[in-house]
Amino acid sequence: MKVAILGFGTVGVGVYEMLEKTPGLSPGPVLVRAGKVDAPYKTDDLDRIVSDPSVWAVCECMGGVEPAFTYAAAVLKAGKHLVTSNKALVAAKGPELAALAEASGAGFLFSAACGGAIPFLHNLQLAAESDDIQSLGGILNGTTNFMLDSMQTLGVDYADALREAQALGYAEADPTADVSGMDALRKIMLGCATAYNLLPTEGLCREGIESLTAADVKDLQSRRLVCRLLGRAGLTDSGRLFAYIQPVLVPDTAPESAVRKNFNLAYYVGKNAGLIRLMGQGAGRYPTASALLRDVCDLRRGARSMMRADCQRVEADNSLPVCRYYVRLPKDKADALRFESLIEDGETVRGITDTLPVIRMHAIAEKIRGEGCKLFFAALED
Amino acid sequence: MKVAILGFGTVGVGVYEMLEKTPGLSPGPVLVRAGKVDAPYKTDDLDRIVSDPSVWAVCECMGGVEPAFTYAAAVLKAGKHLVTSNKALVAAKGPELAALAEASGAGFLFSAACGGAIPFLHNLQLAAESDDIQSLGGILNGTTNFMLDSMQTLGVDYADALREAQALGYAEADPTADVSGMDALRKIMLGCATAYNLLPTEGLCREGIESLTAADVKDLQSRRLVCRLLGRAGLTDSGRLFAYIQPVLVPDTAPESAVRKNFNLAYYVGKNAGLIRLMGQGAGRYPTASALLRDVCDLRRGARSMMRADCQRVEADNSLPVCRYYVRLPKDKADALRFESLIEDGETVRGITDTLPVIRMHAIAEKIRGEGCKLFFAALED
Repeated sequence: MKVAILGFGTVGVGVYEMLEKTPGLSPGPVLVRAGKVDAPYKTDDLDRIVSDPSVWAVCECMGGVEPAFTYAAAVLKAGKHLVTSNKALVAAKGPELAALAEASGAGFLFSAACGGAIPFLHNLQLAAESDDIQSLGGILNGTTNFMLDSMQTLGVDYADALREAQALGYAEADPTADVSGMDALRKIMLGCATAYNLLPTEGLCREGIESLTAADVKDLQSRRLVCRLLGRAGLTDSGRLFAYIQPVLVPDTAPESAVRKNFNLAYYVGKNAGLIRLMGQGAGRYPTASALLRDVCDLRRGARSMMRADCQRVEADNSLPVCRYYVRLPKDKADALRFESLIEDGETVRGITDTLPVIRMHAIAEKIRGEGCKLFFAALED
Repeated sequence: MKVAILGFGTVGVGVYEMLEKTPGLSPGPVLVRAGKVDAPYKTDDLDRIVSDPSVWAVCECMGGVEPAFTYAAAVLKAGKHLVTSNKALVAAKGPELAALAEASGAGFLFSAACGGAIPFLHNLQLAAESDDIQSLGGILNGTTNFMLDSMQTLGVDYADALREAQALGYAEADPTADVSGMDALRKIMLGCATAYNLLPTEGLCREGIESLTAADVKDLQSRRLVCRLLGRAGLTDSGRLFAYIQPVLVPDTAPESAVRKNFNLAYYVGKNAGLIRLMGQGAGRYPTASALLRDVCDLRRGARSMMRADCQRVEADNSLPVCRYYVRLPKDKADALRFESLIEDGETVRGITDTLPVIRMHAIAEKIRGEGCKLFFAALED
């Protein structure tokens, strides 16, 4: 079975190499940009791929919403299976692609778009069919976990942690999508679509790691707490979807603390299965390519779409999940929150709040920052 | 689609309840022992199940090799899909059942037999199709992990840990299969069959946790090491299969140390995917039933057998995997091993050996015990 490839960057090359070695599969034509056709198996003409009857499936490894969406849509309209690692594409255009897949009978799988090598969305889908998914989430961004781990274990500050991540190729020149939590949030969105047939596009709360300092890490270590950037989503008792990304403080004995370097940890809670955690490499050429190949093999054994054509875009409701927060902020802003305990350190205070809704903590942080003040917050979960 | 159930104990009842709630599925007849038919949906006649055209699949939840094998064989011969949580059955008769499944075109899945709610064998099979599995294993027995965790965190001795596990229903009245490592070894055997199409039945090394004392745990804690019962299997460079169960000492910051109570952790290493770890509940009514339901849903989407009809029974070769060991033994037996470091404690010594083959350490332990002496050993992995 021939599998074509769209995009020949880090991941695309890995997929090509793996297809050459996987029994029963072989690489088909590879779409590259005009002017980059330097081998017979490469083409800059998508029609050569969608009109080739020997192409059974297509791996999209370009990244970005356009032109990936236009190409992916053409692939599905032609009735060819689509497998993608492109989270921006699926978060933005998943329902449209799912509808095209359903109309043509083609498969549409994207487990490589969330958690890299970790078979998270694949298992989430199977669990959603056979169990009730109560919640899901995890450490879904390797760049920020690498930085948090460096700050935690080496005591370096944020700027040095970022420089090291960039030097090792874990962070891009513009790291905003990673450090702001946007990348992880897109992965949570895909998890919601897979588990609940709901794609949250509004009402999401997102806090990255940009506010964390070496002094914060030192204070947290004295409390035997480790900071991780965690996404969480699920259904409230009234059936509303919550979904957010924020720093979370976990005990140094928790499995989340044992997620080192650029590893990821994804989880779901099934009503019957209980808490299932999956750990592995969340990015990189071969880990991501292995996930694309896994989806291709899953198509071969009969799997079809990870998203239904009737997947609804919804507004998330983060007014119900509540937690206590660890907050560092200027002393003269401390009355914006109710603290269970508070320690003064010059003009700065650090404290543990009482429980408050996720949406409220994020709004208070935005207001205080809007007043030109610095603040760090992270959820404390017991 | 109707799913019949063989056996109505802890797991069978859970499967029945879940089938009633899963869209598109419903419980079929339930096979119970003669004299136990107290409801219209129960029967003591297997023929009522295998000859019922409305029965699409059968969940075997009886346990033990016979009569489970006779019944399972009849189910597969009748062309009905078989899903089982019975590791003893699959470890003993897997290839015969796989051959029957292939002959009749029925499915044969058993991911519930290894790791409970954790979708380990399911993912291992998919990874084996799309990647090269270099090794696999994990903490696959919840009873012993619960005991080890109690000894580690509460400081209780072995007998008290066992009593607590029995009181909570985690350990059976005769705990031999768990504490000797036999249960975990069967699960490793299933992993090998799924990943390598090889079922190791000879040459296996097995050491349980019976020799661990509270004094050992205390000494290990001073070294910041945590004892876990781990199974490992894989292929050596020359293509020989190794497979063994033994206590392993892991740093207290490792993910394996964060596996608490009766949880399990299973892993595989893919050449491309890297190390993938899965954690969850390894036993219990609903966790195990959720795994059976997951396999049923996997059949519905096209999955077939987890074991091939040509799966070969082989002799494991544990002469190549090597590690250093922590050993506690009588002082006058210490010359049976070469130690890198050794501490005397009265008539007992505790030391770290140089690297030696797994098979050699197990043989030395057997010899020393055969001389009436007590000894504890656990692998030290760096």
